[in-house]
Amino acid sequence: MGNLETLFSPERVAVIGATESEGAVGRSVMENLLDGYEGDVVPINPNADEVFGLEAHESITDVDGVDFAVVVVPPQIVNTVLEEAGEAGVRDIAVITAGFGESGSEGAAREQEMREIAEEYGINLVGPNCLGVISTSIGMNATFTTKSALEGSISFMSQSGAFISAVLDWSSDHNIGFNDVVSLGNKAVLDEVDFIEHWGDDPSTDVILGYLEDIENGREFIDSAREVTKETPIVVVKSGRTEAGASAASSHTGAIAGSERAYEAGLKQAGVIRAESVQELFDYASILEGQPLPDNDEIAIVTNAGGPGVMSTDAVGDSGLQMASFADETLEALEESMPEEANIFNPVDVLGDAPADRYEQALDIVLEDPNVGSAIVVASPQTIDFRDLAEVIAEKQQEYDAPIAASLMGGETARNAKDIIDEVGVPTYFDPARGVKSLDALREYSEIKTTDYDVATDFDVDRERAREILERTKERETNKLGIEAMDLLDAYGIPTPDGAIVSDKQAAVDAAKEIEGNVVMKIVSPDILHKSDIGGVEVNVPVEEVASTYDDIISRARNYQPDANILGVQVQEMADLDAGTETIVGMNRDPQFGPLVMFGLGGIFVEVLEDATFRVAPVSEGEASEMIDEIDSAPLLRGARGRDPVDEDGVVETIQRISQLVTDFPQILELDINPLVATPDGVEAVDIRATIDHEEL
Amino acid sequence: MGNLETLFSPERVAVIGATESEGAVGRSVMENLLDGYEGDVVPINPNADEVFGLEAHESITDVDGVDFAVVVVPPQIVNTVLEEAGEAGVRDIAVITAGFGESGSEGAAREQEMREIAEEYGINLVGPNCLGVISTSIGMNATFTTKSALEGSISFMSQSGAFISAVLDWSSDHNIGFNDVVSLGNKAVLDEVDFIEHWGDDPSTDVILGYLEDIENGREFIDSAREVTKETPIVVVKSGRTEAGASAASSHTGAIAGSERAYEAGLKQAGVIRAESVQELFDYASILEGQPLPDNDEIAIVTNAGGPGVMSTDAVGDSGLQMASFADETLEALEESMPEEANIFNPVDVLGDAPADRYEQALDIVLEDPNVGSAIVVASPQTIDFRDLAEVIAEKQQEYDAPIAASLMGGETARNAKDIIDEVGVPTYFDPARGVKSLDALREYSEIKTTDYDVATDFDVDRERAREILERTKERETNKLGIEAMDLLDAYGIPTPDGAIVSDKQAAVDAAKEIEGNVVMKIVSPDILHKSDIGGVEVNVPVEEVASTYDDIISRARNYQPDANILGVQVQEMADLDAGTETIVGMNRDPQFGPLVMFGLGGIFVEVLEDATFRVAPVSEGEASEMIDEIDSAPLLRGARGRDPVDEDGVVETIQRISQLVTDFPQILELDINPLVATPDGVEAVDIRATIDHEEL
Repeated sequence: MGNLETLFSPERVAVIGATESEGAVGRSVMENLLDGYEGDVVPINPNADEVFGLEAHESITDVDGVDFAVVVVPPQIVNTVLEEAGEAGVRDIAVITAGFGESGSEGAAREQEMREIAEEYGINLVGPNCLGVISTSIGMNATFTTKSALEGSISFMSQSGAFISAVLDWSSDHNIGFNDVVSLGNKAVLDEVDFIEHWGDDPSTDVILGYLEDIENGREFIDSAREVTKETPIVVVKSGRTEAGASAASSHTGAIAGSERAYEAGLKQAGVIRAESVQELFDYASILEGQPLPDNDEIAIVTNAGGPGVMSTDAVGDSGLQMASFADETLEALEESMPEEANIFNPVDVLGDAPADRYEQALDIVLEDPNVGSAIVVASPQTIDFRDLAEVIAEKQQEYDAPIAASLMGGETARNAKDIIDEVGVPTYFDPARGVKSLDALREYSEIKTTDYDVATDFDVDRERAREILERTKERETNKLGIEAMDLLDAYGIPTPDGAIVSDKQAAVDAAKEIEGNVVMKIVSPDILHKSDIGGVEVNVPVEEVASTYDDIISRARNYQPDANILGVQVQEMADLDAGTETIVGMNRDPQFGPLVMFGLGGIFVEVLEDATFRVAPVSEGEASEMIDEIDSAPLLRGARGRDPVDEDGVVETIQRISQLVTDFPQILELDINPLVATPDGVEAVDIRATIDHEEL
Repeated sequence: MGNLETLFSPERVAVIGATESEGAVGRSVMENLLDGYEGDVVPINPNADEVFGLEAHESITDVDGVDFAVVVVPPQIVNTVLEEAGEAGVRDIAVITAGFGESGSEGAAREQEMREIAEEYGINLVGPNCLGVISTSIGMNATFTTKSALEGSISFMSQSGAFISAVLDWSSDHNIGFNDVVSLGNKAVLDEVDFIEHWGDDPSTDVILGYLEDIENGREFIDSAREVTKETPIVVVKSGRTEAGASAASSHTGAIAGSERAYEAGLKQAGVIRAESVQELFDYASILEGQPLPDNDEIAIVTNAGGPGVMSTDAVGDSGLQMASFADETLEALEESMPEEANIFNPVDVLGDAPADRYEQALDIVLEDPNVGSAIVVASPQTIDFRDLAEVIAEKQQEYDAPIAASLMGGETARNAKDIIDEVGVPTYFDPARGVKSLDALREYSEIKTTDYDVATDFDVDRERAREILERTKERETNKLGIEAMDLLDAYGIPTPDGAIVSDKQAAVDAAKEIEGNVVMKIVSPDILHKSDIGGVEVNVPVEEVASTYDDIISRARNYQPDANILGVQVQEMADLDAGTETIVGMNRDPQFGPLVMFGLGGIFVEVLEDATFRVAPVSEGEASEMIDEIDSAPLLRGARGRDPVDEDGVVETIQRISQLVTDFPQILELDINPLVATPDGVEAVDIRATIDHEEL
């Protein structure tokens, strides 16, 4: 999409469908624009001479110099109006009108046409089926909400317009301001990626917030978000999380929600901070907007009471933060300046009779400690004056470069002190756990900001051979990978057991002679799914029995299924399963995120315990390593219970090579290497299943 | 403890240490009592003639008819004063003074003496080191807080006095009232169990809340709470949850915090609703105080917007509630009365232009549906008037017997409507997830209230033989159970493999002949821990090799450790491990809850994946069954991956028999049956380790 600068700072705005009719959306939009917008407002309405005292034009084509148009006409004529606007040179348009993709096939067709018009004219189109756009820096509220936004540096996009109405009503009450607000609607043209890219370059935006029910293009989102979060944090509530929620999402917005596993992997890979609730969304936004990032993960707690100190310590334990270990000088200084009964270890207890200046002494000491990255000040209303304490906190926040949160544990007394610390961006909550969690979001962003995303390795593979193998499957009537499976892995450099697929007895014997030790023999037929059940697999076959076993296997298969297309017998080296650990590397395609690579331990671990982890491909070396770290059963690969640690590098490389394979070939719809046997000396893919999309070939 | 009636409704209260001195605790207590308490206040102070215009007495012994005394004198004279009070017949006393168990050995000795005095005189003693007691129904604030409590039906105990100060300050701002408030302090005499029992019988208490850092006597707590929660819900924040938190708890209050696993099991067994945060504590309390319990687990959502509907549905997915499936008549009625574009399926979307009466129609229909147990009304500020909607909600809550929560998603507009629904106990939160969570607490309590706790089975065991076996270990120098282990299990009816421990070759052969098939032979020595490593275990020994194997094992052991005390060789039936699944049944003693019985799958499952579950003994049949349900690896016992399901009843019975054994013998400090092999035909305890406390024998 083009530059969105003008969308948020137009000098002349047209309202197509402007009216004074009571209850009409076109009236609300006019009223909101006329209330504070610095530029020109141009009403477009063929049936009116003027609207709210402004000359009304019959068509957008009659007006010059319109930067941005808001469309509120009935759905049937929206596309006509859009073409006129395109002709008139308007390049930024918000379509508020509903009745498109969300409302059946006729609407979907209209939305497709809209997309084409937007493309033809290069229109940055917001919506349709949305609430509009707000840009507080120019006083523009181009929506039909009843409340507008306070000025601030949070830019907010939402896939639910009703949620924007709610947030605006609520945020003005909580003194939370916004830079831009966008209602995404059906995302026919502009989507979340366009806005994060715009806000990432926008110096007025300090934090990007999103309420999203789906993400249109997962991989693009990941790549953009990784760039943007180098400078600007992104916090997202992804709604429609649970199965039940997802079904509501798709029935409502027509969005096909991707699976939770894909979003979990994708948002993490994108460097997005995920809020689990609306409360967290704004808690995180406020602290990210207002405070510096911590130098390290250690937090100091300063409190005037034991109980609240314990609560805060619990919250630290639940977070990614660590309780700071104070330096010796810190302890000495605290010992010197605090009363004897005070606890000088973290959490520091300055005692119930502490006035604000004792807090100040303690804060000065702990914030000087290089081990302390952030601090929370917790106070129960005993003898302390919360306003005095708030002054101290505000001062310290300015004096030191560490983020501070507060928990002034009271009602009215706390409210009365809130404005003092609000001004310096220090949040206060009754529950100290909320403050700790907010500081933890700063820690998380600080980690994201400094992440050096490694690029997926480009292994030297035989892509042409892989293509030929996949094309060969087209000739067959099944979409399963069969005889070609091992060759495909071989083309992408993934170790497989020695062996061959043969179609006569002598070839079987010759193949077995090439292999050291006894062999495994398996029927190869796309029509026989459960090979073992019909006696189609024999293990531990000595070379002298290969010929007779060949006959046995073939005749059992024919017996079992006379019409089966039997391609031959696979003669394979015996994998030393006892010496190794069975793992699974798999892939499924997610509608939003594309190829999702899975890793887990074989057998019960993935199948019963669901101990598996996912990444959106392409998967880099670092990500593949993280995948191993993430599974609960990882110790089994690392020498638990007296085993020898397996070749983790081999596993990591296989994950990456599979990632490369499924990225190179979108025709591979799903794939499982099960098991990939990992031993101390390497890995070997013993079996693979894959489904190929013939249409794509 | 005695009846606590008088503690909360005294007619005459003495303040021992009453004073007018600025900043003194004795002054604050006097001021608080004089502000609203209906009864007599008697100041005791040998150095004053009067305090706040009331005649001051030299000693409590000079005054008649005192029901309740508050003690604020220095710690050194507290016990003297207590004896005087005891002599004077005062039976309810709160000791606010600090300087006891929490402050070193001198204080601990004082606290012990205090306990003895209380016992001698039968004093119901609150504290020491506490804030005091509040009873709103008689206007009594016998604490030194700056704020008192509003009247209500929540009774609240807290192990942190500072937290009470904070809650009182906050709650008056949030219109939350209390019946009684108690600061538990060091719990020298009265503890959480005394108060839940008292409030359980108190008709003025609708909900019991607790902030606890530890529980003194876990089993007693479980038994009392189970009784009380038949009538009155108990909601607890257990602080000091994480390792870091627990260390803060013990450094502060001298409490030895039990492990989180023990509290998790114990609170669940007690039927206590556990709040994870202070916010949850009061969210749950408010809704439990104000609303009826749901008839079933299904919830209806009625909203005016899709996005908030999705958020609410997500929250239902995260809870123990289910999305209600509407009856056909409900869908028909909704279809008839709602606009065409409305979504009549759950979540019901009454559309953005819905006025309050459309909500009313929808609520009337869904609340009539017998499938619907509870409802949440979610509204974004579009055209709706929140006050009108609040009126509708309040009316419906009165009309139907179902609990309702609201999410009026706004700021000032929502605050302005809050009082209307507050009055009927309907909470409203900006985040619909909080409302859903609160309704889920009602569902949880409804389940707790109707739980029929089964009594632990009293199996017919040979307790005398077990005692003798345990006593025999006393003669040895190790506290590990050795040669006697299998006998002990046998005495408690737990199946063990056939076999015997023998100390000569011929006996070994004789023993092997008694056993069908090959045998396992293991060295028996309390000094040899890793039997396999030194060649002390031979499996699959045919009877003809038993004699020579006996010699081999003995000589290897002597060779390895010449000074080892070798008791013999165990000759045991081969357990058919392949046909069975290895499980572990174990026990550890928790300082608060006593014997904690563990169950999990053997090998990696408990040791690497920590997939285990716990219950405080005695464990009933129902609880033992639940334990199997709770582990992630349960499917492996139930036929996953083509296995035959094992004899679950045998596992359940073994858990119970172990529970009985460790309850009968506190001398058993810890115990592991590992593995208990479970097959389709039964279970067999193949190996056991136990540690015995010789002191207790």
